[in-house]
Amino acid sequence: MTHDTLRLGAFFYATGHHVAGWRHPSSEADGGITLKRYIGWAQRAEAAKFDLVFLEDGTGIRDGDLRSSERTARSTHFEPVTLLSALAAVTERIGLVATTSTSFNEPYNVARRFASLDHLSGGRAGWNLVTSATDLEAANFGNDRIARHADRYERAEEFADVVLGLWNTWDDDAVVIDRASGQFSKPDGFRPLHHKGKHFEVRGPLNLSRSPQGQPVLVQAGSSGPGRDLAARTAEIVFTAHQTLAEAVEFYGDLKARLPRFGRAPGDLKVMPGLFPVVGRTESEARAKFEELQALIDPVVGLALLGRMVGGHDLSGHDPDGPVPELPETNGAKSRQQLMVDLARREGLSLRQLYLRIAGARGHSQVVGTPAQIADEMEERFRAGGADGFNIMPPTLPGGLDDFIELVLPELRRRGLFRHEYEGCTLREHIGSRPPAGFGPARA
Amino acid sequence: MTHDTLRLGAFFYATGHHVAGWRHPSSEADGGITLKRYIGWAQRAEAAKFDLVFLEDGTGIRDGDLRSSERTARSTHFEPVTLLSALAAVTERIGLVATTSTSFNEPYNVARRFASLDHLSGGRAGWNLVTSATDLEAANFGNDRIARHADRYERAEEFADVVLGLWNTWDDDAVVIDRASGQFSKPDGFRPLHHKGKHFEVRGPLNLSRSPQGQPVLVQAGSSGPGRDLAARTAEIVFTAHQTLAEAVEFYGDLKARLPRFGRAPGDLKVMPGLFPVVGRTESEARAKFEELQALIDPVVGLALLGRMVGGHDLSGHDPDGPVPELPETNGAKSRQQLMVDLARREGLSLRQLYLRIAGARGHSQVVGTPAQIADEMEERFRAGGADGFNIMPPTLPGGLDDFIELVLPELRRRGLFRHEYEGCTLREHIGSRPPAGFGPARA
Repeated sequence: MTHDTLRLGAFFYATGHHVAGWRHPSSEADGGITLKRYIGWAQRAEAAKFDLVFLEDGTGIRDGDLRSSERTARSTHFEPVTLLSALAAVTERIGLVATTSTSFNEPYNVARRFASLDHLSGGRAGWNLVTSATDLEAANFGNDRIARHADRYERAEEFADVVLGLWNTWDDDAVVIDRASGQFSKPDGFRPLHHKGKHFEVRGPLNLSRSPQGQPVLVQAGSSGPGRDLAARTAEIVFTAHQTLAEAVEFYGDLKARLPRFGRAPGDLKVMPGLFPVVGRTESEARAKFEELQALIDPVVGLALLGRMVGGHDLSGHDPDGPVPELPETNGAKSRQQLMVDLARREGLSLRQLYLRIAGARGHSQVVGTPAQIADEMEERFRAGGADGFNIMPPTLPGGLDDFIELVLPELRRRGLFRHEYEGCTLREHIGSRPPAGFGPARA
Repeated sequence: MTHDTLRLGAFFYATGHHVAGWRHPSSEADGGITLKRYIGWAQRAEAAKFDLVFLEDGTGIRDGDLRSSERTARSTHFEPVTLLSALAAVTERIGLVATTSTSFNEPYNVARRFASLDHLSGGRAGWNLVTSATDLEAANFGNDRIARHADRYERAEEFADVVLGLWNTWDDDAVVIDRASGQFSKPDGFRPLHHKGKHFEVRGPLNLSRSPQGQPVLVQAGSSGPGRDLAARTAEIVFTAHQTLAEAVEFYGDLKARLPRFGRAPGDLKVMPGLFPVVGRTESEARAKFEELQALIDPVVGLALLGRMVGGHDLSGHDPDGPVPELPETNGAKSRQQLMVDLARREGLSLRQLYLRIAGARGHSQVVGTPAQIADEMEERFRAGGADGFNIMPPTLPGGLDDFIELVLPELRRRGLFRHEYEGCTLREHIGSRPPAGFGPARA
């Protein structure tokens, strides 16, 4: 750990992270397409002093089985950068992190949109860089199949360099607005980038001056070898998933050990695993809440969710009460597939038991218990060197968020593990990091 | 004319449309990168009952001469869809139209972002479809030169079809949210598009349900032959530029005559030319205001602006007081180049006289006068069948907008030419059109 308190994200996955959350009365089931719901959630998270709101994304419906899609809330949702832009206008301090894929976008457009969000929000923008991992998404962009994992990461590496380069085409003191002399920006205050690489040729400069944070905060989630190197070189936050403390500590240590190679210190990158908390005033209340959600899972939805989680396999023909079949390796998100299969083998789970296990946290840590039990789990991982904070994944929204704010945060604060007030104004100030070497503001 | 009142857009080009507007005390010179300025302008335009806010866009700095860029406010500005998303959260009724190019984007992404804006705003989104026309923009996307005009339009045609198709992959009553049965959307409520064309292969469906307007309003600005056909087939608003009443009437008549070929009625497409008004309580006050702005134009900026307006020529070596040289045809925006050259030849203007002429309106109608004179001009073009309304281009922001609202709107209302209150809630209701045939809501 590099701070003495936790960084906390509010990961909004309308209508909550549990796959059947939308069916539960503690969710606002129209949240995915209703701005006022998100405004309510974001303002509550800000009042509770969360570091950031986090939004994932996909460039298409990721469930090939439309029968299953029709039975989940996730087939329709706002595009995240537009949504966060709207939230920027009605919040003041909380960080705003959106996912955008490097696979089917152009770096100039992505650099502009996140720099624009950083300006709109007064320095609160973050970009979660991902590669797209499903054939269904590829098919919306002229490709039958998704690119190979190594090729996706090669493109992502260069994509990140171009975006970081474009954010740095303007000096931070370039805009002078001198009406008398007619000089709007200072001479040579911005300049072309002239990037020429394997995947991209980009002249620049960006048509947007340096943003309040110098540059938006870069977030990543990849945990493969190339993913870890890319993160160590360019990211300030890594969002990750681990089932056991040992795995979390191994990952954290490995990632932090890679930083010096890129001229960075351990504090420059925060590791924030996902955490799916089901909170009760007593353990049995928490268990009952969880079982209530589990009972709402439709088997069609459960098998489809599992199929996606193990890399895009169609499991709809399998007996839910049979074992997890052998799965050929896919081009999809490798780390998640392995995580799921390992879990099933380790505990001898049937397909149904496995999908019930992941329906909430989707491979992330799941804690069902009292505020003290949840705080214990967080504190243990934090103090053992497995996390700098957590990306909180409420089972339902707003119910699960309110539970965490009203029950768990007071316990964390009692232990001195979470802030009472924001220390700064920008996302980077909240997380207390520095931009990657070579990409910082010109004056730094 | 197909309505008895005018449609009016508030075209926000921070810090005002006059190229030296940012130097004038009636502008907020940091507007291009300061959200609270835009919020103020948009809320004033909404209080005045404008149909829409309109934002142009470019995918790069469009002035190759960085010396000139440094002396204008336009080198740094928000990306328009993120900006309008922020404005959606703090306005209630006014339409929100942003420009996005078909040249360097993917239709799936564009369809999502505008559908998202339509959801965020409760049915107020519009997409101004353009093709990019400068080599400098192309160079940010791996191309030395911009594609030929005909190729750009071929791509734009197919792009529009894919976007309209994706917006129609969801039935308008698809989302049912039945918690008890577990059916979130109705069976077969959405479906793939399976588009396969020359430029794009897109499977669909969109991962966002049908938006409040059924689909965002499509706006176009092309006035070439292919541009007119594309507009007649797909657009609900055409933004255009004409210097003379005769040209405006010709264009209006030609465009409306093309509509029946695509199964559409004259009222389904609104022609809204740009109008650059310099308003004074007396004509001499208006003239003085205008001359004050003109005197602020730096010759470096004037020649660069003119060079861009005639298709991307470098005029920096020419004598400002010499004649307009012969210009080779470019791949750029043909119609605008012709407009400029015709104007210079017709009136025997020097380069300086020409850039002074276009520095405000950039080829659009420019009226310097009293509220009655400006209203006369608007009423004449409206009643002669040359416009359904106007896209108002304030010389400075907010000063020029306030002048129009406080002085010209009362005059238009006295004449019964502009609304006192919004009649509806969506942009489509404001402009009173119907979506293109074959692309309408399923229930229509």
